[in-house]
Amino acid sequence: MATKSNGKQTVKLQNPPSIVSTASIVGPKEGQGPLRLYFDNIIDDEMWGEKSWERAESKLMRETFAKILDKAGKTSGDINYIIAGDLLNQCIAATFGLRESGIPFFGVYGACSTMAESASLGAMLIDGGFADNVVCMTSSHFCSAEKQFRFPLELGSQRTSTAQWTVTGSGGVLLSNQGTGPYITYVTTGKIIDFGIKDANNMGAAMAPAAADTILTHFKDTGIAPQSYDLIVTGDLGYVGKSICEELLKENGYDIKDRYNDCGVMIFDREKQDAHAGGSGCGCSAATLAGFIYQELQKGCLNNVLFVATGALLSTTSSQQGESIPCIAHAITIQRSL
Amino acid sequence: MATKSNGKQTVKLQNPPSIVSTASIVGPKEGQGPLRLYFDNIIDDEMWGEKSWERAESKLMRETFAKILDKAGKTSGDINYIIAGDLLNQCIAATFGLRESGIPFFGVYGACSTMAESASLGAMLIDGGFADNVVCMTSSHFCSAEKQFRFPLELGSQRTSTAQWTVTGSGGVLLSNQGTGPYITYVTTGKIIDFGIKDANNMGAAMAPAAADTILTHFKDTGIAPQSYDLIVTGDLGYVGKSICEELLKENGYDIKDRYNDCGVMIFDREKQDAHAGGSGCGCSAATLAGFIYQELQKGCLNNVLFVATGALLSTTSSQQGESIPCIAHAITIQRSL
Repeated sequence: MATKSNGKQTVKLQNPPSIVSTASIVGPKEGQGPLRLYFDNIIDDEMWGEKSWERAESKLMRETFAKILDKAGKTSGDINYIIAGDLLNQCIAATFGLRESGIPFFGVYGACSTMAESASLGAMLIDGGFADNVVCMTSSHFCSAEKQFRFPLELGSQRTSTAQWTVTGSGGVLLSNQGTGPYITYVTTGKIIDFGIKDANNMGAAMAPAAADTILTHFKDTGIAPQSYDLIVTGDLGYVGKSICEELLKENGYDIKDRYNDCGVMIFDREKQDAHAGGSGCGCSAATLAGFIYQELQKGCLNNVLFVATGALLSTTSSQQGESIPCIAHAITIQRSL
Repeated sequence: MATKSNGKQTVKLQNPPSIVSTASIVGPKEGQGPLRLYFDNIIDDEMWGEKSWERAESKLMRETFAKILDKAGKTSGDINYIIAGDLLNQCIAATFGLRESGIPFFGVYGACSTMAESASLGAMLIDGGFADNVVCMTSSHFCSAEKQFRFPLELGSQRTSTAQWTVTGSGGVLLSNQGTGPYITYVTTGKIIDFGIKDANNMGAAMAPAAADTILTHFKDTGIAPQSYDLIVTGDLGYVGKSICEELLKENGYDIKDRYNDCGVMIFDREKQDAHAGGSGCGCSAATLAGFIYQELQKGCLNNVLFVATGALLSTTSSQQGESIPCIAHAITIQRSL
């Protein structure tokens, strides 16, 4: 039996699902950045009235989920599946944040590639006829991530110039077999790529080869030229990783410079916000997709977007044991109209 | 558009994928248990020649994956997707163990429900025409889990009578659109259920309501009677959770006692192996499925199995913050013939 992938890494959806609503809620720093007008809600402080950063992150998920449904005029009963995950150990932001939803739940772990991974699976479940409506979402939180992955915030440790700033935010999409676009038309699922980089403070460099591999594969599988996209956007290589990714693609014959950006670059102001190499975290690409990208597609300022979320699949244990950083990137094509 | 789920939690597959091969590798304790003759490989010690327990667990994944392919006469190039995850923070057993596979990878997190979650997604991707062959797998490791979730093993801390013993082992299946069964015919995806239990040493009790909810939903959605199954098997409630699950189902009008078992109960000998309330860990249900259940289906000793893997979605952080334990259970129907 021939499959929709035709033996390739890319699947072309036969009945492309629409993104019928999105929502994003971000932290105060993100709310001062260049994309601030695109977010649904900007919280005043990182605790958001909760007793811990982890609970605050779960609340980001819960409230973003509610907003996605609300904006689409849907209730829980309309949703067949939630596909979600996050960076916290055992993905507790997602599971605790969404435990009251009463909706069949698939937990995913793709580090900061989660937004594209969940949307890829959601799009295939709808295209395959298994669901009418799927919510795909993720989150990250600067304080819960720093606490878990790096140093206690109270120490005020100096950050390296290659370090990225974990976005406090949640973003997600409601995919549906009803709707008038924007549509998810292609899904390119990434392989784990490990080029041997061990510096956990330079994740952009670690992730760039995975992003380049998935983008290259997408072009080769589909025959689509980079010029067909008005935006190719990786999700969260930051400044260091973005330039490596661009270079790797150029070496392979694809010059995407004039239409390429990165969510980690877009979300903070380099001059004014002191985020070093840019933003990171699952919430970075998720909130940028749910905010800026989706709204620009709706307005018609963007027509064809390749959204490539990237993840660094390390843990503190793997780093402490001297391991390198396996990375992954998943891509979806989002078209304004078919 | 009507979907295969028909608004319910259960999907009936139109072109049920076959399980064309399975493999399991387990630790020494599991290799002395009642299911020992069903495993492909029993390792001599928990380190298996590696420098850390985490590396040993990654090796379990890597070698089990190789064995799944080998037994099916397949190579990496034949496989469209791997869907895998595990219990370690950021799922490093899966990502490090499978990073050299060169196969598009979907990371999942469902705690000990991972085997059923990955097989559910894999079966739908094949039924939907997105893939020919998908490997679905998981692992757990007694030492890496104890170190991460409980106490340093060196302390020799006393275990409570309700505590379960994390299985050292990996198991997985190769699903294919080619094959002659056993077939995955139904997928019932669980909701997150939290009954407020906070005792991380009694996960069977925490998970039982989720298992009962998914099993009940499966019966109601499909109209299949419990008597149609010759085995209904939960994956790792242990003795405490199994009896609660049985009771909950009985209260709801379903007496499954004469055909119900639990992987956590089956994998260790209660009298001789001192595993307290039974086995647990992602590897428990995965190795039991890949070993005992699959081989009994092949022999014709089993014909129709409801496989229900259960997961406790807690973390050490959530427990330390006084949170209860959200749980989930996913079910798949495995039929010897159609």
